[in-house]
Amino acid sequence: MNKIGYPLGSGPAFTAVHGNPSGRGAALEKDINDSNVWYRETGRALIYKKPTPIQVVNVDYPKRSRARITEAYYRTPSTTDYNGVYRGKYIDFEAKETRNATSFPLSMIHPHQIKHLEQVKRHGGIGFFIIRFIRQDKTFLVDAPCLIEKIRETEHSSIPLSWFTEHGVPLQEGLYPRLAYLQAVDALYFKEVE
Amino acid sequence: MNKIGYPLGSGPAFTAVHGNPSGRGAALEKDINDSNVWYRETGRALIYKKPTPIQVVNVDYPKRSRARITEAYYRTPSTTDYNGVYRGKYIDFEAKETRNATSFPLSMIHPHQIKHLEQVKRHGGIGFFIIRFIRQDKTFLVDAPCLIEKIRETEHSSIPLSWFTEHGVPLQEGLYPRLAYLQAVDALYFKEVE
Repeated sequence: MNKIGYPLGSGPAFTAVHGNPSGRGAALEKDINDSNVWYRETGRALIYKKPTPIQVVNVDYPKRSRARITEAYYRTPSTTDYNGVYRGKYIDFEAKETRNATSFPLSMIHPHQIKHLEQVKRHGGIGFFIIRFIRQDKTFLVDAPCLIEKIRETEHSSIPLSWFTEHGVPLQEGLYPRLAYLQAVDALYFKEVE
Repeated sequence: MNKIGYPLGSGPAFTAVHGNPSGRGAALEKDINDSNVWYRETGRALIYKKPTPIQVVNVDYPKRSRARITEAYYRTPSTTDYNGVYRGKYIDFEAKETRNATSFPLSMIHPHQIKHLEQVKRHGGIGFFIIRFIRQDKTFLVDAPCLIEKIRETEHSSIPLSWFTEHGVPLQEGLYPRLAYLQAVDALYFKEVE
């Protein structure tokens, strides 16, 4: 029994509702969540992380206290982790971080996430990935259709860091917001509007 | 111990990931979820119910089997139940059903949901409520800013059914989709585009 309660001991309290039972992605996730709070509070965008889907099997109803779930399991999310609205547009993205030094393992992206982001594009929404190389301390925002095309083309099981340097927008870490990813969204998707 | 595991015995398997631990709203929720599947499969819209937020306190890691959550609690959602993209627009809504015969109790709508739907409007998204009167077998789609204005104005703790008849769009129940709520969205928000 893990009294702290995080899947594979992945982090502090804010990750109690997180998207990755394996524990990977927790630091990037915190950066994005903090940025989303800042973006919401400054009225810039309305973007949330979706709760982790959990399958509830047993619930206990003690008298005079709230329902207690006593058996439940993590489910595989059917979509991406984040969505919302920015400058009138539907925004949808997935964030992943890897400890691999020189390439991003494609096994980290699920087929249903690819399918979902293709549908986002088809319906007129904006879809992208935020990919972090932890050891290099580099984070990129990449257009979803662009990365998906690369995934379809490649015969390898990973995509080199150099591809992200070429096709992604590097994200700067700061204080407010923690990760200014909407700057990259402006640059990629709202260029003609500026 | 409730072996079936649904809060207050509210329904079959599809509600294992549902938004309302009190069990209210389960039939309407199923209608909307089924409609969303149909809308997705026919390429009409990409709208999902968000998973119910659950606070995980304890997780067990049995060898050779998946992580088992042994203590967790339902959390109050900070936003609405449904969002997605339709005709290039961000869509966001909350669904509620009541057994009250003649009026809708305002206690069913939380202040944070009102605040959230006001922000949706501010960011250029489309926000609404789907309200069902179970005993009358009537379901309405109401523009969020319109209902919120009424909530702010009224001195009563509920809004009469007649108000919904006047200001809402009645939703027809059918087979495919179960609840054709996008027809009402077209009528309310895309009139000029038709």
